[in-house]
Amino acid sequence: MTEPELKRSRKAGLPPGTAVHIGERRAEAMVITRYSYGAQSFDEHPQVTVDQCAFPVGLERTTWVSIQGLHQVDELQRLATGYGLHPLVVEDIVNTHQRPKVEDYGDYLFIVLKALYPEGDNYEELVAEQVSLVLGKNFVLSFQEGPQDAFVHVRERLRNGKGRLRSSGSDYLAYTLIDAVVDHYFPILERVGEDIEQLEDRLVADPGPDTLPTLHRLKRAMIVLRRSVWPVRELVAHLERGESSLVKQSTLVYLRDVYDHTIQVIEATETLRDMLAGMLDIYLSSLSNRLNETMKVLAIIATLFIPLTFLAGVYGMNFKYMPELSWPWGYPAVLGIMAVVAGCMLWFFRRKKWL
Amino acid sequence: MTEPELKRSRKAGLPPGTAVHIGERRAEAMVITRYSYGAQSFDEHPQVTVDQCAFPVGLERTTWVSIQGLHQVDELQRLATGYGLHPLVVEDIVNTHQRPKVEDYGDYLFIVLKALYPEGDNYEELVAEQVSLVLGKNFVLSFQEGPQDAFVHVRERLRNGKGRLRSSGSDYLAYTLIDAVVDHYFPILERVGEDIEQLEDRLVADPGPDTLPTLHRLKRAMIVLRRSVWPVRELVAHLERGESSLVKQSTLVYLRDVYDHTIQVIEATETLRDMLAGMLDIYLSSLSNRLNETMKVLAIIATLFIPLTFLAGVYGMNFKYMPELSWPWGYPAVLGIMAVVAGCMLWFFRRKKWL
Amino acid sequence: MTEPELKRSRKAGLPPGTAVHIGERRAEAMVITRYSYGAQSFDEHPQVTVDQCAFPVGLERTTWVSIQGLHQVDELQRLATGYGLHPLVVEDIVNTHQRPKVEDYGDYLFIVLKALYPEGDNYEELVAEQVSLVLGKNFVLSFQEGPQDAFVHVRERLRNGKGRLRSSGSDYLAYTLIDAVVDHYFPILERVGEDIEQLEDRLVADPGPDTLPTLHRLKRAMIVLRRSVWPVRELVAHLERGESSLVKQSTLVYLRDVYDHTIQVIEATETLRDMLAGMLDIYLSSLSNRLNETMKVLAIIATLFIPLTFLAGVYGMNFKYMPELSWPWGYPAVLGIMAVVAGCMLWFFRRKKWL
Amino acid sequence: MTEPELKRSRKAGLPPGTAVHIGERRAEAMVITRYSYGAQSFDEHPQVTVDQCAFPVGLERTTWVSIQGLHQVDELQRLATGYGLHPLVVEDIVNTHQRPKVEDYGDYLFIVLKALYPEGDNYEELVAEQVSLVLGKNFVLSFQEGPQDAFVHVRERLRNGKGRLRSSGSDYLAYTLIDAVVDHYFPILERVGEDIEQLEDRLVADPGPDTLPTLHRLKRAMIVLRRSVWPVRELVAHLERGESSLVKQSTLVYLRDVYDHTIQVIEATETLRDMLAGMLDIYLSSLSNRLNETMKVLAIIATLFIPLTFLAGVYGMNFKYMPELSWPWGYPAVLGIMAVVAGCMLWFFRRKKWL
Amino acid sequence: MTEPELKRSRKAGLPPGTAVHIGERRAEAMVITRYSYGAQSFDEHPQVTVDQCAFPVGLERTTWVSIQGLHQVDELQRLATGYGLHPLVVEDIVNTHQRPKVEDYGDYLFIVLKALYPEGDNYEELVAEQVSLVLGKNFVLSFQEGPQDAFVHVRERLRNGKGRLRSSGSDYLAYTLIDAVVDHYFPILERVGEDIEQLEDRLVADPGPDTLPTLHRLKRAMIVLRRSVWPVRELVAHLERGESSLVKQSTLVYLRDVYDHTIQVIEATETLRDMLAGMLDIYLSSLSNRLNETMKVLAIIATLFIPLTFLAGVYGMNFKYMPELSWPWGYPAVLGIMAVVAGCMLWFFRRKKWL
Repeated sequence: MTEPELKRSRKAGLPPGTAVHIGERRAEAMVITRYSYGAQSFDEHPQVTVDQCAFPVGLERTTWVSIQGLHQVDELQRLATGYGLHPLVVEDIVNTHQRPKVEDYGDYLFIVLKALYPEGDNYEELVAEQVSLVLGKNFVLSFQEGPQDAFVHVRERLRNGKGRLRSSGSDYLAYTLIDAVVDHYFPILERVGEDIEQLEDRLVADPGPDTLPTLHRLKRAMIVLRRSVWPVRELVAHLERGESSLVKQSTLVYLRDVYDHTIQVIEATETLRDMLAGMLDIYLSSLSNRLNETMKVLAIIATLFIPLTFLAGVYGMNFKYMPELSWPWGYPAVLGIMAVVAGCMLWFFRRKKWL
Repeated sequence: MTEPELKRSRKAGLPPGTAVHIGERRAEAMVITRYSYGAQSFDEHPQVTVDQCAFPVGLERTTWVSIQGLHQVDELQRLATGYGLHPLVVEDIVNTHQRPKVEDYGDYLFIVLKALYPEGDNYEELVAEQVSLVLGKNFVLSFQEGPQDAFVHVRERLRNGKGRLRSSGSDYLAYTLIDAVVDHYFPILERVGEDIEQLEDRLVADPGPDTLPTLHRLKRAMIVLRRSVWPVRELVAHLERGESSLVKQSTLVYLRDVYDHTIQVIEATETLRDMLAGMLDIYLSSLSNRLNETMKVLAIIATLFIPLTFLAGVYGMNFKYMPELSWPWGYPAVLGIMAVVAGCMLWFFRRKKWL
Repeated sequence: MTEPELKRSRKAGLPPGTAVHIGERRAEAMVITRYSYGAQSFDEHPQVTVDQCAFPVGLERTTWVSIQGLHQVDELQRLATGYGLHPLVVEDIVNTHQRPKVEDYGDYLFIVLKALYPEGDNYEELVAEQVSLVLGKNFVLSFQEGPQDAFVHVRERLRNGKGRLRSSGSDYLAYTLIDAVVDHYFPILERVGEDIEQLEDRLVADPGPDTLPTLHRLKRAMIVLRRSVWPVRELVAHLERGESSLVKQSTLVYLRDVYDHTIQVIEATETLRDMLAGMLDIYLSSLSNRLNETMKVLAIIATLFIPLTFLAGVYGMNFKYMPELSWPWGYPAVLGIMAVVAGCMLWFFRRKKWL
Repeated sequence: MTEPELKRSRKAGLPPGTAVHIGERRAEAMVITRYSYGAQSFDEHPQVTVDQCAFPVGLERTTWVSIQGLHQVDELQRLATGYGLHPLVVEDIVNTHQRPKVEDYGDYLFIVLKALYPEGDNYEELVAEQVSLVLGKNFVLSFQEGPQDAFVHVRERLRNGKGRLRSSGSDYLAYTLIDAVVDHYFPILERVGEDIEQLEDRLVADPGPDTLPTLHRLKRAMIVLRRSVWPVRELVAHLERGESSLVKQSTLVYLRDVYDHTIQVIEATETLRDMLAGMLDIYLSSLSNRLNETMKVLAIIATLFIPLTFLAGVYGMNFKYMPELSWPWGYPAVLGIMAVVAGCMLWFFRRKKWL
Repeated sequence: MTEPELKRSRKAGLPPGTAVHIGERRAEAMVITRYSYGAQSFDEHPQVTVDQCAFPVGLERTTWVSIQGLHQVDELQRLATGYGLHPLVVEDIVNTHQRPKVEDYGDYLFIVLKALYPEGDNYEELVAEQVSLVLGKNFVLSFQEGPQDAFVHVRERLRNGKGRLRSSGSDYLAYTLIDAVVDHYFPILERVGEDIEQLEDRLVADPGPDTLPTLHRLKRAMIVLRRSVWPVRELVAHLERGESSLVKQSTLVYLRDVYDHTIQVIEATETLRDMLAGMLDIYLSSLSNRLNETMKVLAIIATLFIPLTFLAGVYGMNFKYMPELSWPWGYPAVLGIMAVVAGCMLWFFRRKKWL
């Protein structure tokens, strides 16, 4: 896997603000859903077109336009023009290699996040999908790369009308969406943590040659996680400082809560990294231990039999005058000597704690 | 042991402020004790119900409501409503995976700490229990996860009426509780420190294959400690800055004292971590040393006997014309040559400092 | 390759402001191109002389003087005098061992960047060429070391007249040039990233003795990259703060975009460095693994045959009274014993998981 | 040696401000010396009692009360009450596990330092004794743990009346005492530095198994040093900022001098730590080198003689039809072949640079 | 080489401001040169006495008193008194173990630098000599330890009258002297860089046991360099901030230039340190590689011949009933079997890529 942010060269040389979709071209069509709600009412318009998402008037209702799929750049640009977005914002939405950030354009805030999904069921390979949010006075636009939806629970809560969501404005919706993305990190951390523990158990019980690549893959998953989460911390801290008039005072305490969650994710990530670093030490010393083990077996066998073989060799010599050869007790005597030598050796090994 | 803060997924998708008890569900019932005291008087009401803990009136007496056991969320929520706590505070109290922090809600301060207990008698496995404090003008609420009580000495001092405790207000009580949690770290550090020293002695005397996992466990205990203490430093520093009107001027000097203790714990933790890091080096080099030792024994025996065996082999050949075989002194001469070769080898080994 | 900034001694002892060209003396003549444009018009004057580059009058048109080749110091000095540049600026332009920086001289900003090119096709050896920019009210001077041109796309866009470039002032041109240099880092990162991945695959499949030097070369390429990019971050951040009146408000948002790109390059660089650091661990443990493998083969063979050879040696002794020798079944019996011993050994190896 | 700051549990559960002497209970009685001096006069009262140390009146003379030995807590408390010290100050004086710090109590400054002494003559084991200073308008109290006196030279200079000491106030005396403690670090650094160099020489010449523990002990001495000095830097920087009215303007330049000395000690400590870290690398690679050496000797002998032994074995076979055996030149021919084989092997070893 | 700043104990116990020359007592006499110049005139007075260096009057001319050799402390003190220097300044000048710093005494600035010289021609052993400057309104005093002169080029430029030097004031002279010291680091870096590259080539081609000590020596040279340069950065940054009225506005841009050079030196130093750290990895893995190589040769020879020797041993047994022995084709058959076994082994080795 080449790191995604390296793959930008397709775009080099174009003027800034040129929106070119960079990212894996997911085949599905762009899906736009429009939600429009107030304290009393709630409308959901699935599968609308760009023309049905005109700039909302009136502050009493909040509009959420959820866009999934980013490759129809022309459509996106029409939408953006309707909402008065800066060309650089559209460029950043479709070029999905941004790092999480928040940018204040006065009339609206532009927020970039990374939602993490496992590659299929494999939590050692994490896919980071870009989630872009545009928070205006009475609307939120959300842009997701593919069909995987980090906002399932938010849509549900909007429909149910439980909690503060419907009665609060667009800033609370934006908070809810950010929270949904951050909350998504916890099960991933949990699963990666379990993988790490399993690996640790295997490392102690039976370290094979495949443990190191697994270790490495987990390390890299940690890097992806870390890179997705660290900037979110700054982002939320920025929002929480309450510098933008778009974020109401009452929402700040919720942002502090997201901030706490982000810190928790970061600490857990650092802990897992520490554990992975420690496991490399264990692996290397286990390699060393096994070499020691092998060498001991070899040393014991060789040290035991080499002197005996020498003795046998001596009495295999063909000299004419070797008085021992004709002694009747010569053979048993030599066997006896051999047994004594072997005994001494075994005693020596035991003293060395090799046996 | 999966890191606790990874286990949050049970809650994902719920609106914020939803209080769900996350943590190991300890079976015991919730125990509420209410203390109410002033300079002259002191009342202790053990095993009260939530209804008996109404918001206290009047500033001349201080009320401390101590709650042990967090799984009866409904009761807690009723209590919190009575004291006017924000829903997020209740959520943070029952979700026991917060990191230590202080949050200023104007009328009250919300403080989260981690009390550390050994897993049974095993100081290599530390259990971090969440202790939440709510400090109001004339009351303190304390929430503990289980029956293990970090506040035993505080209750005693309240009953005895010694020291400044009864004559000071709620902020001094909060300080006393924080101090109790921090003071609790010292015996743990002491015990872990002793374990580390024992391990170190064993490492030098007789390093076995079980030393590394022990080392690893101790390292992780250090991580738990570190993660519990570091944020306490910021927390106390925040309180000590005296920004909240809830903390009186005269209490600040005591908070500075807690701050000093926190720094001492952190420094001791860092020192123990340094020692553990150094022990890994010692372990690896001791492995290397033992391999060297094994190889030397093998090399000495093999190098000594292989040439002799060759000599014996030569005179074991069956050539018809081997004049040495019929010499009368052939056999003793060969034995002599063998002795000389062996002597040279031994001299060589001695020069190499192998013997 | 000696690090370039070490090679300054040629100049030691000269008074400051003495412009001496330090750098590899590239043979080609100095090529000056002058562009002069406004919203409506555009003129390109290739291959002009210094005298044709007089200080431009009037603010309605922007002049860009692009200089390639720096060894004709006298000519450069004449040009600099015409534009009123400080002697230290000229010194920094021709002494191409500056680190990226921005300096505010009131009337003009002096900006130093590093453009990276591969040494031929070899992306493991990066050449850092200095690009100096002087941004005035209505002009930009750009100085490049050699014929390799980081500004090809900018020249093209000027000629085409697409985008905001012609209708914006000199500060937008300076931004475009900085952006061109930074955008240039992405394909290099991509290629280096691919090299690293190939190396990683080779490391797992078949680690040879040449992998380490390659690893080392890549590491050093990362250092060059890092050193070229890190200061650019500060540089752009400085410009973006909008302290200089030469940079218009409307250009700041574009500078923020360059800043984001710089951060992306830095993060990718750090990730690649992490990967390289991890690969060294893999390499070392793979060396250890192979030693283990070799020793196992040796141990198996030696341990299997040494006892058997001893047995054969025993019955090769020439004692007169060795009853076994004359037993009719002696020979097959010994062969059988040998087979049993070998079988035991093989069973032992299998239990040790050596086979 | 358990780290001193871990040993606090003896005190857990007591109210704050309870003075309990924690530290090794040194047997000697408490020795109080009172100095009282002005520009013209000087009185020394050795071995006075607490009652003879009443709070001094008048600003024209400076009083220094030097206390050695801290276990008579009651006496100390009486003294402290006489000088109006806060209970926490007395607690910190007798609990000798504080880290260096300065605390401003308005009327007086409370300063904690660590004086380092070698354990006997062994500079690898450093003992850190707490030195507490209380600086008032016209007095200084100094508290030392035991009979080892870091202030010998200060007492001497007071008696001699040389330098500015007598004519300056209590702040200059406090500076002099701090300076004396810091100056004391230099000979220790010098001695530890010499030990490290000796170890380094031994490491290169003849690395034994005891070098690693020595290395480790020196490392720990460095940690003790580092922990004693680092906070002194902050402490002096705090004093030098001149925020307290107790420190006169003219003394600040002298505090800057102490600050410089502290930085020198820190830098030297860091350098020694770097050297120790490098020595571990040398030690490990020297182990590796010696293993290589051993294995080469084994490989040379085994590789040389194993093929020859095989040859001898072939002609030791008892086949009836082995024509070579009856050739008259068979024996010398085989010896010749053996010599050739051995020669080839030796040539091979030389080419491999093993010989 | 003991680190110089450890050697201070000779002075311990003396009152502050006592000037004692600490440093290697260089034998040569103190050489004082006095320069006095204005825009039009220039006088050089070599070998003057202290009395000929009275405090200069009038601001139209600048006086530079250059002192080489510091052991005549009395003379220095007389000079210092003439110029009104603080006793601590004189102490710092003669105690040559200061770290680079700048101190503002109102009427004059006191600047300490470190000039680096190679020990003879050996760039692996750097000698750091202290250069102290005192910058007053119309004078500069410079103090150097020995006869090695970092200011040769400055003296030359003064005599020639080229550049701004003569027409600018004392602050520009001070800048020029600082610049001379910093410029001196470049050739040293260049030479050390070359040494490092040579070592690197040797490490890959033929790593011997002496490479590690060389590596270590170079590392320590880097530490000396680093410690001499890092504080200079702060020093120059301090001067550049223009807080002192002694430094004119027009000189600030030149100080910024020195600052840039300092950063270049620091970056080059860090790069060389990175290279040295990487070389240790290469060295250790090369040791590992060579062990692998040795073990392979041993394993091949032993594995090849041990089974064959066993076969020969079998037919060397003296059993009466061994039918194979009397077969006419027994001997060639056994030789054939041996050849087959050897062939199999060689095929096995080739598959393992050992050959």
